[in-house]
Amino acid sequence: MTSRTTFLGLGAMGSALAAATLDAGRPSVVWNRTPSRARTLGERGATVAETVEEAISGDGVIVVCLFDHQSVRAVVDPVAANLAGRTMINLTTTTPNQARGLATWAAKHGVTYLDGAIMAVPATIGRPGTAIFYSGPEAAFDKNRELLDLWGQSDYLGIDPGIASLCDMAMLVGMYTMFTGFLHGAAMVGAEGVSAVEFARRQAPFLAAMTGQLVGLAATVDAKDYAGVGQQSLEFTEVALDSLVTASLDQGVSVEVLRPVLDIVRRQIAAGYGRQGTARIVEELRKSR
Amino acid sequence: MTSRTTFLGLGAMGSALAAATLDAGRPSVVWNRTPSRARTLGERGATVAETVEEAISGDGVIVVCLFDHQSVRAVVDPVAANLAGRTMINLTTTTPNQARGLATWAAKHGVTYLDGAIMAVPATIGRPGTAIFYSGPEAAFDKNRELLDLWGQSDYLGIDPGIASLCDMAMLVGMYTMFTGFLHGAAMVGAEGVSAVEFARRQAPFLAAMTGQLVGLAATVDAKDYAGVGQQSLEFTEVALDSLVTASLDQGVSVEVLRPVLDIVRRQIAAGYGRQGTARIVEELRKSR
Ligand SMILES: NC(=O)c1ccc[n+]([C@@H]2O[C@H](COP(=O)([O-])OP(=O)(O)OC[C@H]3O[C@@H](n4cnc5c(N)ncnc54)[C@H](OP(=O)(O)O)[C@@H]3O)[C@@H](O)[C@H]2O)c1
Ligand SMILES: NC(=O)c1ccc[n+]([C@@H]2O[C@H](COP(=O)([O-])OP(=O)(O)OC[C@H]3O[C@@H](n4cnc5c(N)ncnc54)[C@H](OP(=O)(O)O)[C@@H]3O)[C@@H](O)[C@H]2O)c1
Repeated sequence: MTSRTTFLGLGAMGSALAAATLDAGRPSVVWNRTPSRARTLGERGATVAETVEEAISGDGVIVVCLFDHQSVRAVVDPVAANLAGRTMINLTTTTPNQARGLATWAAKHGVTYLDGAIMAVPATIGRPGTAIFYSGPEAAFDKNRELLDLWGQSDYLGIDPGIASLCDMAMLVGMYTMFTGFLHGAAMVGAEGVSAVEFARRQAPFLAAMTGQLVGLAATVDAKDYAGVGQQSLEFTEVALDSLVTASLDQGVSVEVLRPVLDIVRRQIAAGYGRQGTARIVEELRKSR
Repeated sequence: MTSRTTFLGLGAMGSALAAATLDAGRPSVVWNRTPSRARTLGERGATVAETVEEAISGDGVIVVCLFDHQSVRAVVDPVAANLAGRTMINLTTTTPNQARGLATWAAKHGVTYLDGAIMAVPATIGRPGTAIFYSGPEAAFDKNRELLDLWGQSDYLGIDPGIASLCDMAMLVGMYTMFTGFLHGAAMVGAEGVSAVEFARRQAPFLAAMTGQLVGLAATVDAKDYAGVGQQSLEFTEVALDSLVTASLDQGVSVEVLRPVLDIVRRQIAAGYGRQGTARIVEELRKSR
């Protein structure tokens, strides 16, 4: 008999993970603090547990998807003594250090801990293009691959349990800055009566195409080869950004997000790197301030 | 007999435009300040003019692609008297106000002025996916559509001659902020030994997918419908950005580009909009400071 997979936490995301698992015909036992959220999954064939103890009474993998780091501790601390020898896959969003803390907690209780970070919304769980990062012991990743692959494209990043969450956060920085840059541009053209939708229809394919540059930029960063040929120089970028700042101000648009980029470029030029490639911005970001 | 198209300026971009035109079998006359740059085009069938006067002696469209606004004036001012009744298409990068200034100059000399902004590099001129924005009189755009379409996907934005360049600049804001956000993320994971290329392979498809959100964000902005359902709230975004800032600092990464985004979100929350959608960032950017 296949072991039943346990799901602790049936919010929007936990429910989507459990549903995809049930749809694949895998027996599952589900628990949620507010019991009513378990009903639909019960109708789809899940065993509904009334307590956490009951939910973890088998020998299958325990999938945790709760609100945050603290709610995970609140749920698993009371049953820690019963968890020795089990594998826990935690898909709750945490910081890298919180994930490391949970891994330490797990090790103390003889639990194998795999951390996960979901790069998707509940509606796209199990759909192509949904990436989920994992980190922790590779053997636990390999052993549960069939289960993990039901939810998305499983991507193992390394043994440090914090790295999946770190990579998740690093990706979100790109997303939030891109969204903010887009809204800045929309404000610029909006000042002349161009609608944001009209602008987005042009900006979206352009930015999608520009993501094609990232691997090349990254290769430069890895090689620290900023003096190599074919790169857009910091001097060129300074002129371009300066004119973007001017045009923004002309349109009455705040440059509080754009000006720091120009400032970084200028500091690199002042340090004597004007002829080098613009990817050198990364060196300035590496200096914490 | 078809009128010959005149090309003034045979740098990397001007040469690419002229080459695509010749390849389509259209007669062209080319001029460049440094004559040697005209040689290859001459071999491909262009008539090489030795002076600007000679280059503009026919009755065809005059395509200008020079270094900047000032070099355009330097080239066309001396021959202004000979340009009455002609159409000039200027693909030189300028600010919106410089484009408007050139349009005023042109009107004074009886010249029809169409401004263009090329969203591509010379190597992709004439290739699918290359967008070129135009603004100025629509009749001039329509009349020359066949020529313009040889270079890329021609996109007419409106009668204000500054709008093509403004839209170009607005798009570049998105590009530079996206690149900077990516480099920030690369610095975060780099601090734990993850290579930038490894990160870029994940970040690029994720950001490309996220561009799919822009039209939706834009519709919210156009409707000012920030209280509508299904939006990520500013409060949610504040928590997310705060943890990205913390994680960045933990990795020794500067938050000088990320923190202003958080600051904007916090100002909107302080103004009482915490439950409203994150697209409301645009309202804060519209206030020049
Ligand atoms: N939704 C997304 O788009 C998305 C995307 C990526 C990652 N995630 C992550 O996935 C996790 C879950 O998100 P979600 O969207 O499912 O959130 P949600 O719908 O708000 O669900 C939160 C879950 O946590 C439970 N919970 C909260 N505090 C608890 C406590 N002290 N003790 C026991 N249970 C507690 C809730 O139980 P009750 O039902 O009893 O309140 C509920 O099951 C979060 O860490 C989130 O960051 C979500
Ligand atoms: N290259 C791109 O990827 C790209 C992309 C989008 C837009 N653009 C825009 O296209 C325009 C041309 O770019 P490019 O890449 O072709 O630049 P380029 O290779 O540097 O060529 C510059 C051209 O301007 C001429 N020039 C400069 N100052 C002059 C003056 N005072 N009098 C007469 N001629 C002068 C140069 O003549 P000499 O040969 O005599 O120096 C040359 O023909 C620029 O506005 C650029 O921003 C370029």
